[in-house]
Amino acid sequence: MRTACIVGGGVIGGGWAARFLLSGWNVRVFDPDPEAERKITAVLDRARRTLPMLYEVALPAEGTLTYHETLQEALEGAEWVTESVPERLDLKHRIYAEIQGIRPDITIGSSTSGFTPTELTQGAAVPARIIVTHPFNPVYLLPLVEVVGKEGGDAKIIEEAREVLSGIGMYPLYIRKEIAAHIADRFLEAVWREALWLINDGIATTEEIDNAIRYAFGIRWAQMGLFETYRLGGGEDGMRHFIAQFGPTMSFEWTKLMDVPELTEELIDTIADQSDAQSGHMTIDELAGKRDGNLVALIRALKQQGSAAGLLVQEHEAKLAPQDPVIAPEKLRTIERVIPCDWTDYNGHMNESRYGQLWSDAADTVMRMVGADAAYIEGGNSYFTVETTTRFLAEAHAGDRVEVRTTVIEGAGKKLHLFHEMLRGEEVCATCAQLLIHVSLETRRACEPQGDVATHAAALAKAHEGLPKPE
Amino acid sequence: MRTACIVGGGVIGGGWAARFLLSGWNVRVFDPDPEAERKITAVLDRARRTLPMLYEVALPAEGTLTYHETLQEALEGAEWVTESVPERLDLKHRIYAEIQGIRPDITIGSSTSGFTPTELTQGAAVPARIIVTHPFNPVYLLPLVEVVGKEGGDAKIIEEAREVLSGIGMYPLYIRKEIAAHIADRFLEAVWREALWLINDGIATTEEIDNAIRYAFGIRWAQMGLFETYRLGGGEDGMRHFIAQFGPTMSFEWTKLMDVPELTEELIDTIADQSDAQSGHMTIDELAGKRDGNLVALIRALKQQGSAAGLLVQEHEAKLAPQDPVIAPEKLRTIERVIPCDWTDYNGHMNESRYGQLWSDAADTVMRMVGADAAYIEGGNSYFTVETTTRFLAEAHAGDRVEVRTTVIEGAGKKLHLFHEMLRGEEVCATCAQLLIHVSLETRRACEPQGDVATHAAALAKAHEGLPKPE
Repeated sequence: MRTACIVGGGVIGGGWAARFLLSGWNVRVFDPDPEAERKITAVLDRARRTLPMLYEVALPAEGTLTYHETLQEALEGAEWVTESVPERLDLKHRIYAEIQGIRPDITIGSSTSGFTPTELTQGAAVPARIIVTHPFNPVYLLPLVEVVGKEGGDAKIIEEAREVLSGIGMYPLYIRKEIAAHIADRFLEAVWREALWLINDGIATTEEIDNAIRYAFGIRWAQMGLFETYRLGGGEDGMRHFIAQFGPTMSFEWTKLMDVPELTEELIDTIADQSDAQSGHMTIDELAGKRDGNLVALIRALKQQGSAAGLLVQEHEAKLAPQDPVIAPEKLRTIERVIPCDWTDYNGHMNESRYGQLWSDAADTVMRMVGADAAYIEGGNSYFTVETTTRFLAEAHAGDRVEVRTTVIEGAGKKLHLFHEMLRGEEVCATCAQLLIHVSLETRRACEPQGDVATHAAALAKAHEGLPKPE
Repeated sequence: MRTACIVGGGVIGGGWAARFLLSGWNVRVFDPDPEAERKITAVLDRARRTLPMLYEVALPAEGTLTYHETLQEALEGAEWVTESVPERLDLKHRIYAEIQGIRPDITIGSSTSGFTPTELTQGAAVPARIIVTHPFNPVYLLPLVEVVGKEGGDAKIIEEAREVLSGIGMYPLYIRKEIAAHIADRFLEAVWREALWLINDGIATTEEIDNAIRYAFGIRWAQMGLFETYRLGGGEDGMRHFIAQFGPTMSFEWTKLMDVPELTEELIDTIADQSDAQSGHMTIDELAGKRDGNLVALIRALKQQGSAAGLLVQEHEAKLAPQDPVIAPEKLRTIERVIPCDWTDYNGHMNESRYGQLWSDAADTVMRMVGADAAYIEGGNSYFTVETTTRFLAEAHAGDRVEVRTTVIEGAGKKLHLFHEMLRGEEVCATCAQLLIHVSLETRRACEPQGDVATHAAALAKAHEGLPKPE
């Protein structure tokens, strides 16, 4: 089993510890802060809960985490060191000297967000073994790590570092030239300064600024970043057209903004050529389709979490929702919707699991009709599905508009027995016999429905008595 | 039915047309560009495909879209005008004058990204009726629209505008003070300039910059924005601590960056107080939990689309995937994984549909074992599920580590009959009898398996002959 040495705990060091540990490495921590173990444990708890959720397979067995009183002890058997101590150059230099006195052969990756390798390696015994590996909080979920070495350093050391970082599920972005704050933090800095001005001048509050970001370019940037997005902004003529249209200022000059590089023909060529190399294998139409698929999936993911742009869709949807059907001797139209692009699988059709989503949502409509609505569930009662039998009759695809029509087979006491048909136009694509049982959400066991719910369920079953039954 | 008049087509005008049309408004377009109809149709096609996918209910019936030769005709019966002509002030002034000559009573929302209301309303007959309503591309998916009126304008007109925009599913962000480029584009501009420098100086390519954004703060900003994220960066001590730690420069000063406001006690108080008002109802731990849930859901959404950070997880997962089980007279361990937080529903447990995901994934493992792997599917054959019967025996929750064990009941010719048990430790949480049929992906009809697939399936069924059968 491989071993990493973590120097400096806290939010970043703890995040590194979690990445290594959950990737099957042993982790040896050195941090004189008496709070270090508590802080790392808090980060680890969050990481243990969430990092494995990204994968459809189990992660390797966790390594062993140990805390050590001395750097000497923490370095034992290690093949990698991550340094995440406070951003003070003298402190970092002292730690590197001590590490290289014991283990001159080991690579030290620094989490520094601002210092360059040249600054970090001043006076070092083995400068090539000290590199920047700058991650982003939360380290256990975000993949980016900026990797920077001193100019003229050892390419093999960088290569090995990239392998270690890829191995723990990260994306090492190698930066060829040293620059203060590397790449990402330069953008964060620019945005931060602009935000300070907007607040200082009373233009917007912190919340308004956050909303301006997360309801617009934040979602765009989660999937494409800046240039691929603007390539689309240029329409059919791509990046060159975008630059011609917006130039260095994008729209107009305003005060407080910094100097801009002159947009020479050479710089325009460089940008357009790089953009072609990056995205030129897709037409603008393909790129727009990809963007839209990503945006739908992202907004739907936020909707499922009840957050940000997804919460806005939820709120809007509440206003669009049709009236629930009324009790009548005909099949209930319980669902009417479009199949979203995040419901399909490698066969190009709606995955079987998503039919289950339709049955579950159709059952919710029936539950509301009998009075088991959100307030009822809030009050501690609900129906749980105990058995479903689904027949898949025809494929469905993203974009299909479908309906579910539901027959109530039985509604007596704790039992609610439904038969759903999913239709596309007049074609039946799938059917489901679904048995639900009424439960107490406190005991999580079956119990009799409260209030009028059983009466309504019985009335519904009675109204459907004459409808054809499934076999 | 309500009617909107769209002046100026193109990507932005087309996006507005789509928003109104798909929200049930009639849309009347005026754009002298002979290409206008083609451009709007292209945007509409994309919008019709994707906007309905955001909702679990059907959108209202589409309104009617018409194209008109004159502004006069396009304004007939309209109660709202959106102007998205090129960013030339003289052109905009001329159009406003013409509109207000015909309909002085109608509100004109301008899509301008740079002009202030004061600039837009110079010389206007009814200045209060001309406001900024600045959207973001793609307008049919991104909710943000910045709303700005001239100082001292009519609050009622702004209020009505916000209602119209909310009604078509957007988020109107009212900006109290006029400022060039409003809010969001000021950030985009700051980032754009920094990006130009990085390319100009040969630090990074367009693709490297895009990766630095989308693998790190892009995903963060999709859900929280800047200040709520940094509140977390301050750890348990929140925003005030973050500012104390990073100050105006966040880390260090570097060249080419603009002037920054002085971080007076007053400004720090303003930011900390606004951040408390925004997020103070959650502890840092709750906020971190929310962030992590969102990040997991976002990365998983990208994974399903095969994009950005989700693609990285896919690639890493391919290296982590366990060996498929071998043919032996014992149940196959087909799945071993953790339940992610995007699989749960309002009952707090794993939604019934996600059991279907486990069965589907377990069947994939069996398919690979008999030789129906990715290459086989690529070659035009696959198995489709035709019937499942699921019994739900115990609830499962996000974070649960579960396994699926699979018995092959029948593997003969086109038929593959599986019995899955989902276990948490030794507890059986659900079972599924699943019937799959071999199909040609060209004809989408049943056909005999190719090569050794049928032989392998038969061998597997034979090996499992002695295992207990479900009822």
